[in-house]
Amino acid sequence: METVKVKDLPPRTVERLSKYRRLLSKYSIDEKNFIYSHDLARLLNLTPVQVRRDLMLIGVSGNHRRGYNVKELIDHISKIIDTENGHNLAIVGMGNLGRAVTAFIRKNETKMNIVAGFDIDSEKTGKEIAGVNCYHVQKIQDKIKELEIDIAILTTSPDATTEIIQLLIQNGIKGILNFTSVHLDIPKNIYLKNYDIITSLEEIGFFIK
Amino acid sequence: METVKVKDLPPRTVERLSKYRRLLSKYSIDEKNFIYSHDLARLLNLTPVQVRRDLMLIGVSGNHRRGYNVKELIDHISKIIDTENGHNLAIVGMGNLGRAVTAFIRKNETKMNIVAGFDIDSEKTGKEIAGVNCYHVQKIQDKIKELEIDIAILTTSPDATTEIIQLLIQNGIKGILNFTSVHLDIPKNIYLKNYDIITSLEEIGFFIK
Repeated sequence: METVKVKDLPPRTVERLSKYRRLLSKYSIDEKNFIYSHDLARLLNLTPVQVRRDLMLIGVSGNHRRGYNVKELIDHISKIIDTENGHNLAIVGMGNLGRAVTAFIRKNETKMNIVAGFDIDSEKTGKEIAGVNCYHVQKIQDKIKELEIDIAILTTSPDATTEIIQLLIQNGIKGILNFTSVHLDIPKNIYLKNYDIITSLEEIGFFIK
Repeated sequence: METVKVKDLPPRTVERLSKYRRLLSKYSIDEKNFIYSHDLARLLNLTPVQVRRDLMLIGVSGNHRRGYNVKELIDHISKIIDTENGHNLAIVGMGNLGRAVTAFIRKNETKMNIVAGFDIDSEKTGKEIAGVNCYHVQKIQDKIKELEIDIAILTTSPDATTEIIQLLIQNGIKGILNFTSVHLDIPKNIYLKNYDIITSLEEIGFFIK
């Protein structure tokens, strides 16, 4: 198998690379220097073939006797996944869910920097909430430019979502993680992940009947 | 195309059925009685063929002139997706994220009933939090039985997750929505959905580079 151009990696592979790295970071704390593909596979409920294929796609092959060098592998995945300065994120909607997600991300070690929150509630705007400055949504245009925000996490109320999304798109947001259960009709050049809690619960409910 | 046994519907179809229903419920408020597959498709960014195929799988075909009867379609999807009494859910981990997710689900009209929360923090246990009784995790066994809980939403801290998950599985939980970013190694008969926020953000970050 050949390595592919980084841009052409399948989304599922990128997802798994992110998980490999997270796991390896914990692994390396225990001062283990090498890991076999079958251990990595077992820890993530994958097949060793899948793991080796993913890593070959990014040009890494293990040593037959000792497996993969953990530190080198972490560094290599980081080089592929991360940009040098990470990404600047905004949370749009600083209600319960917005604050909780902000706190969750800030607790994790990641190159994702939450640099702004947006809301319309004057109780929230102009304040620091969950460690992040909260601005009025009217400032979305200014702040996206000023703070070089390229990813938005949507935790708005359903009614507000359609209008907000137009504003975000017009001002150059490139990626969206959508928690709102509202279907977003967005241009193809914007990368969208939906966390539709109700639909996911209904799917779970259906399959455990 | 033939209808399939309900149990054999693909997960993606079930996901879309849930979305059709949510959309149709809003649609019917405007007193529209019929909808064409191409309208349903447009509103959800799908192809009309996809919509017609999904609905044929559950034995529904539209009227060529008028499209689908909205009310009948909602009822039919509900018959397929819902159980009569819905599902009883527990939130495990009543921190910020757990409370926010609880509030979010309770605001939505759904057959998903959150009947218990669990935590280890004595500040929380024995109280009503976000409208739900919060119990100590030691009561998981009793409460799952007593309240007939079959789905758990995991919003615990990463350290606590592995132990909690054993407890849930041993006591007959059948479905899990996992917000913890911890990889869960669970038996195949348990239906698992992962909402791995960090991995999803890294995936978005990668593809918008």
